[in-house]
Amino acid sequence: MTADAQWSRKDLLGIADLSAGEIGAILDTAESFREVSARPIKKVPTLRGKTVVNLFFEPSTRTRSSFEIAQKRLSADNINFSISDSALSKGESLVDTALNLQAMQPDLIVIRHAHAGAPQMLARRLQAGVINAGDGAHEHPTQALLDALTIRQHKGTLAGLKVAIVGDIEHSRVVRSNIHLLTRMGSEVTVAGPRTMMPVGMDKLGARVAYDLEEAIAGADVIMMLRIQLERQTRMLFPSIREYFLLFGLTLARLAAAREDAIILHPGPMNRGVEIASEVADGERSVILEQVANGVAVRMAVMYLLSGAQRGAA
Amino acid sequence: MTADAQWSRKDLLGIADLSAGEIGAILDTAESFREVSARPIKKVPTLRGKTVVNLFFEPSTRTRSSFEIAQKRLSADNINFSISDSALSKGESLVDTALNLQAMQPDLIVIRHAHAGAPQMLARRLQAGVINAGDGAHEHPTQALLDALTIRQHKGTLAGLKVAIVGDIEHSRVVRSNIHLLTRMGSEVTVAGPRTMMPVGMDKLGARVAYDLEEAIAGADVIMMLRIQLERQTRMLFPSIREYFLLFGLTLARLAAAREDAIILHPGPMNRGVEIASEVADGERSVILEQVANGVAVRMAVMYLLSGAQRGAA
Amino acid sequence: MTADAQWSRKDLLGIADLSAGEIGAILDTAESFREVSARPIKKVPTLRGKTVVNLFFEPSTRTRSSFEIAQKRLSADNINFSISDSALSKGESLVDTALNLQAMQPDLIVIRHAHAGAPQMLARRLQAGVINAGDGAHEHPTQALLDALTIRQHKGTLAGLKVAIVGDIEHSRVVRSNIHLLTRMGSEVTVAGPRTMMPVGMDKLGARVAYDLEEAIAGADVIMMLRIQLERQTRMLFPSIREYFLLFGLTLARLAAAREDAIILHPGPMNRGVEIASEVADGERSVILEQVANGVAVRMAVMYLLSGAQRGAA
Repeated sequence: MTADAQWSRKDLLGIADLSAGEIGAILDTAESFREVSARPIKKVPTLRGKTVVNLFFEPSTRTRSSFEIAQKRLSADNINFSISDSALSKGESLVDTALNLQAMQPDLIVIRHAHAGAPQMLARRLQAGVINAGDGAHEHPTQALLDALTIRQHKGTLAGLKVAIVGDIEHSRVVRSNIHLLTRMGSEVTVAGPRTMMPVGMDKLGARVAYDLEEAIAGADVIMMLRIQLERQTRMLFPSIREYFLLFGLTLARLAAAREDAIILHPGPMNRGVEIASEVADGERSVILEQVANGVAVRMAVMYLLSGAQRGAA
Repeated sequence: MTADAQWSRKDLLGIADLSAGEIGAILDTAESFREVSARPIKKVPTLRGKTVVNLFFEPSTRTRSSFEIAQKRLSADNINFSISDSALSKGESLVDTALNLQAMQPDLIVIRHAHAGAPQMLARRLQAGVINAGDGAHEHPTQALLDALTIRQHKGTLAGLKVAIVGDIEHSRVVRSNIHLLTRMGSEVTVAGPRTMMPVGMDKLGARVAYDLEEAIAGADVIMMLRIQLERQTRMLFPSIREYFLLFGLTLARLAAAREDAIILHPGPMNRGVEIASEVADGERSVILEQVANGVAVRMAVMYLLSGAQRGAA
Repeated sequence: MTADAQWSRKDLLGIADLSAGEIGAILDTAESFREVSARPIKKVPTLRGKTVVNLFFEPSTRTRSSFEIAQKRLSADNINFSISDSALSKGESLVDTALNLQAMQPDLIVIRHAHAGAPQMLARRLQAGVINAGDGAHEHPTQALLDALTIRQHKGTLAGLKVAIVGDIEHSRVVRSNIHLLTRMGSEVTVAGPRTMMPVGMDKLGARVAYDLEEAIAGADVIMMLRIQLERQTRMLFPSIREYFLLFGLTLARLAAAREDAIILHPGPMNRGVEIASEVADGERSVILEQVANGVAVRMAVMYLLSGAQRGAA
C-alpha cells in the first residue's frame, strides 16, 4: 500500500530516473512477493486477464525465464517473441513492430535489445507499460534491483555499505544500473577492471575507480563480479583468459582483503575460472543463487506496480 | 446466437468457400469480441480446457501473436510449433506430423505453410478444426476478415464500395482472400500493380485490373496497399525500389484521386517509402493499426465459431 | 490412491530403476488420466500453481508437445527452453543453468539431452523433480511407459507376451527403456537388426538377439519397429535405404510370420518405406497413433505422481 502510493510510473526504463523512495517501494513490494514462490500453490491472481509481451532481441535464459515465471505466478497471459520470429527480419522497423503489438492492447511489454535507448523509444510511443530487460551497454534495471534486494537481505540496509564491482566495466549494463541504484541508496561504490575495459566518466557517475582487484575489495561489504564476455575476446581486451584470472579473478585467497562478512554477487552466467573461482562461486559467502530467486520476486513486484499505475491512470 | 446459427463448418480454410451469411456471422461475432480486449480483465472463459496448436512453417510476428493473444483471451490452452522445432526436420511428412498432433486431441490447429493447399489437406485428415493462417499465395482468410471488419466499421457496409488493392498482386494471398470476400459482399474491386506482378485471371475472380495507381484509386472508398516483398527482389520484378515508389507508392498527393473520405489499409509489415509514404501510413485516413486490433477480435470470433461447430457435432 | 501409495520417487530418470509395482502404478494412473483428454473441457486442476520447465537440448515435436499438452491439461504453469535460447550458448555449464533454474523454484524439470546421464546429474543437484525425456542412447522412460500402456490396453497384460523390437538397436534409447520395462513385467523380448546396429550385451539385458526379421517376429504378439535415423547414414551402417527396407522393413507379407492378432508399434517419427511400409503403418493392426494419445496420459500420470512425492516430502 505504501509501495503503491509511491509508484506512479507507467514504465521501468532505468534506475537513473528513480528516486530513493521509488527504489525502496520496489524492494519492499518484492519482499512481499518472495513468499509466493515458496508456497505449494505458487500463484496469485494479481495480473489475471492482463497481457504481457516478452520481446527479446538478444538471447537470454536467465532474464527471460525469470520474467516468464514471474508472469505465470501473477496469472498474467504472456506471449514471447525472439528476434528470429520477428517481422524485423522482413525489414520492419522496431517502432512499427511495437505499434502493431500495441494495437493488440497488451498491458506490459518487456524488451531486451542490443541498442541503448530502444526501450525508451518504445515507452514514448506506447500506452502499454514498458520494462527494460537490458538495452545495449546502457541499463538493466531489474538486475540492479534484484542485486539490491539480495544485499539488503544480508546487510539490512544499503546505506553506508562499501561495494566493489569488478570486471568488464565498459560493456556492462549491469554496472551502470547498479552504480545508479547503490549511490542513490547511500552505498560507496568502487569499480575495478583492466584499463581496456574501464570507460571514462565513472567518477561522474559517483563511483571510485581502481585498476587492482585487492585495492578495490579492501574492506568491502559486497563484491560483485561481472561476467567477462568471452565471445567478445576477438577484440583482445586482455592478453589471455589465464592472465585475466590471475589479475582479476576472485579466489578465496584474494577474498581475504574484503570484510570477513563480505558477500559475493554475480549476475550470471558465470565463467568459472575466468572472473571467479568455483571455490568462491560455490562458497558460503556466495549469494549468487539468492540473486536468481530474488529476480523472480523483483520482476513480480515491478509488473505489479506498473500495472497498478495503469489502473490508477484508467 | 444468430451468428452461431449460421455457422456449421469445422474449418476455416479460405474465403472462397464462404457464403455472405457466413462472412456476416464472423464479422458480427468479431464485433462482440472487440470489447473483451478493452476490458481491464481481458479474458473470457469461452475456450477454457480447449487445446489449440499453432503450427507455423513460415515466420510471422503479427499473425502468430494475434492468434496467440486471441487464444489467451479466450482462455484456451495453446502450444506453438515453428518449423525448426519440427519433426519435419527429421524427414516426417506433414500428414504424419498432423496425425500425431491429432492423436493428442487438440480442438483447433492454426497453420501457416508455404504451400497452397496444406491447410485443406490437414482439414480432410483431422477431426480438429483447422484454421488457415496463410498458405502460399493462395488464401489468408482471417486477414481478409479483419480487413472487412475494419472497412465495415468505417463505412457501415461493404456493399457498393469501391475498393482498390495495389501492389504485388501475383504473390499475395491477402489479395485473393480479399477479392473473394469483397466481391461476395457487394464491393467493386480494382487491382493494380506492375505488369510483372499481375497474374492472369483477375477478371475471372471478379476484379477489374489497372496498371496505373491513379486510375485504380480514382473515386475509391477504400485503398489497400500490399507489401512488396523486398526479399524476392532478386528476381527483379521491378527496376528499383525508387522506381516502384514513383509509380505505385501511395503519397498524400496521389491520394487526392480517391474519395475525400477514403480509408487506407495495409496488411503489414509495411515498407515505408516503398509501397506507402510515412505521411499516409501515419495519417488520419490510415486505419492500419485498427486492422491489427480487429485481427484479435476476428480470430477470437473464428475460434469461437469453429469450436461451437465441434460442440454442435459432438 | 493405490498408485500414489506405491510412488515415493522425486524423479523419473529411467526404467532400469523401477520396480514392477512402480511401473504398474504409473500405468494405472495413466489409465485414469486418459479420460481427461476425451472431455469437452480437457483440464483438471491437479498441478495448478506448479511450475514446470521444459529443457530441450535436442529438437523434438512429439515428445515436447506431448509434455506441454499434458502440463496444460494438468493446469501447470510451464516455460520452455530450447538449446538456441540457452545460456549454454554463452558457455555456461549445464549444472549452472540447472542451479539457476532451481533458484526460481520450479516443481518439475523435463529434460532431453544428447548426453546419457545428464538427467541423473541434474536430479542429484536439484530439489525439483526431474523427468528424463530422452538422454543420448541411454533411456527414454516415458516412451517405454506409453508403449506398455498401449500394449496392455490391447493384450490385457504384459506378462507372457512375445515382443519383437526391430531396427537400429545400438543407437536407440527407446529400445533400452523398453527391454527394461518389458522384461520386468514378464514379456519375452527379441531384438533384431543389422549386425552393424546391434550392440553387444543385449542378452545380459534379458533380450534374445536375432539378425533376421522373420525369425524375430515369428509368433510375436507385439512388433515394435524403430526409426532409422537417416541423418546418421553418413556413417554407412547399411548399404542403402532400399537394401534396409528389403531386409528389415515391415511389410504386410512379412507380417504373416507374427501372430494373427499381433499389434504394430513405432515410436515415431516414421520413415515410411524404410523401416515400415505404409500399408502396415496405416493398417488395422497398427496402434501407432494410440501410442501418441497414450503419451499424453502417461506424462500426466508421471507429473502427477512426482508432484505428489514432493507433497509427501514437504
